[in-house]
Amino acid sequence: MEDVRSVPCCSPVGVENPHLDKMKEDVLYHFSLGTKTHNLPAMFGDVKFVCVGGSPWRMKAFIEYVAAELSMEDPKSEYPNICAGTDRYAMYKVGPVLSVSHGMGIPSISIMLHELIKLLHHARCTDVTIMRIGTSGGIGIEPGSVVVTKTSVDATFQPKFEQVILGKTVVRNTDLDESLAKELLQCGIELNQFHTVVGKTMCTLDFYEGQARLDGAFCSYTEKEKQDYLHKAQEAEICNIEMESSAFAAMCKLSGVRAAVVCVTLLDRLKGDQLSSSHEVLQSYQQRPQILVGYYIRKQLNAKVKPC
Amino acid sequence: MEDVRSVPCCSPVGVENPHLDKMKEDVLYHFSLGTKTHNLPAMFGDVKFVCVGGSPWRMKAFIEYVAAELSMEDPKSEYPNICAGTDRYAMYKVGPVLSVSHGMGIPSISIMLHELIKLLHHARCTDVTIMRIGTSGGIGIEPGSVVVTKTSVDATFQPKFEQVILGKTVVRNTDLDESLAKELLQCGIELNQFHTVVGKTMCTLDFYEGQARLDGAFCSYTEKEKQDYLHKAQEAEICNIEMESSAFAAMCKLSGVRAAVVCVTLLDRLKGDQLSSSHEVLQSYQQRPQILVGYYIRKQLNAKVKPC
Repeated sequence: MEDVRSVPCCSPVGVENPHLDKMKEDVLYHFSLGTKTHNLPAMFGDVKFVCVGGSPWRMKAFIEYVAAELSMEDPKSEYPNICAGTDRYAMYKVGPVLSVSHGMGIPSISIMLHELIKLLHHARCTDVTIMRIGTSGGIGIEPGSVVVTKTSVDATFQPKFEQVILGKTVVRNTDLDESLAKELLQCGIELNQFHTVVGKTMCTLDFYEGQARLDGAFCSYTEKEKQDYLHKAQEAEICNIEMESSAFAAMCKLSGVRAAVVCVTLLDRLKGDQLSSSHEVLQSYQQRPQILVGYYIRKQLNAKVKPC
Repeated sequence: MEDVRSVPCCSPVGVENPHLDKMKEDVLYHFSLGTKTHNLPAMFGDVKFVCVGGSPWRMKAFIEYVAAELSMEDPKSEYPNICAGTDRYAMYKVGPVLSVSHGMGIPSISIMLHELIKLLHHARCTDVTIMRIGTSGGIGIEPGSVVVTKTSVDATFQPKFEQVILGKTVVRNTDLDESLAKELLQCGIELNQFHTVVGKTMCTLDFYEGQARLDGAFCSYTEKEKQDYLHKAQEAEICNIEMESSAFAAMCKLSGVRAAVVCVTLLDRLKGDQLSSSHEVLQSYQQRPQILVGYYIRKQLNAKVKPC
């Protein structure tokens, strides 16, 4: 557990928006928080690790897990939802760890990340690492494997995220932090509880037709065409498919924070489409990214960090 | 309150997928429902109106409102969440009315609609009308106005929805049912409680940069460029901006159900970006689509319908 953090010391969370300085107040509407109504530096100034995931229940379970892992649990207290004033997202905190839900799909995580990045900026947080812990469909790998994303690619296997701004398409880079991915892989090896790999992740705008499933309400292609597409994805070194990584990678890169995507595969898409494993099996798979990221955070906090 | 329904009698909910017939079981994963585990015809066979909206709290409030409106409320009972086994979506039912949440953005509503359309198909529902009741930003209209969508357009003001299938882009039509929009406008006139209009709705993939806001974590354009873009949208007869209508319109059209989008405008985007009105004002605005659609449903149920 002896390691030195490779992040630059006292690196802020960047916003790239000259208009923000002119605003007297910033209402983070989808969090039900704001700069006038809440003391954001007092509430969030010590945050060093932000973990995000689709499901609010899972992000609550994660904060409970990480509190125990860091021996910070308070047996008397429930962890309150900091965003209790809204049902758009849920947010929990223990010590330097913040856990936030983001719903499903790029637009949903995009709204959350805009407001999260502004929150961390207003709170004057430094040296923040953001990790998405999620679920995905695997391509040719054993269900239950954990994939740490190297690069997020689109449905044509290109490493890019297209953001439409004023009706024009702007292309953004989707590379994730290479050293962080390696550190997470190393954690997987040390844990030795499940298969962990580093690979490309495909990010789509749809779960059914967008991921070549045969079981949606609409399907205009054959089983063979589906298999051809997924095999081409496999040849392009894509390990898994999910629905948020490209916007996540692009936005974290723009704000200058270290970021990683850690997703468990719930099934092998070369063998099927339906999530028909038992509730217990799927639940235990979903805990794996939490276990990996929880271990990583503990290791980082135990490491010798030079004071700023 | 005397009217004749203009929908064809006993029109089923269409799925366009030859693979579905070969499946022994269909697990509607994101609803935590399935054809083997649940008797879908018994649970949902009488559904005639489905109302969908982003927020689970709002969709629960809607079912309580509509139960009272239809004099179907049971003072002893809470309305249970039919999808209690998952936190992805929430679903409530009273009599022939189903209320379902869909989260934020096209990918999130898309997953829900695939599973909803299959659910209605498996349940052998007929003559179903689906209405989205949501919130939006207005363009040049008074905040609190209710917009019934004529056509959903994209960020380049084109009436289309681009669905990526096997890595290729397929363009789909986003027209909504014209007669239903007219009937809803007529309800607005009869209610006479708030301003109701029929117009075009722009559907974007992002809330901040995608809608020309100046208050996101990132912004690379000037106030003037923002105003130019929104004024061009206004010239193209766009009344409001939201994030789900194009996929909603396209998927409902493919399945052959009558569909409408009814959104209140929470602010005028020509005058600002932040949702800084009081909680009470925003809450009262959000009830307006519920009031309009609740009135429409009551009117339909009271109308003389020829037996099939």
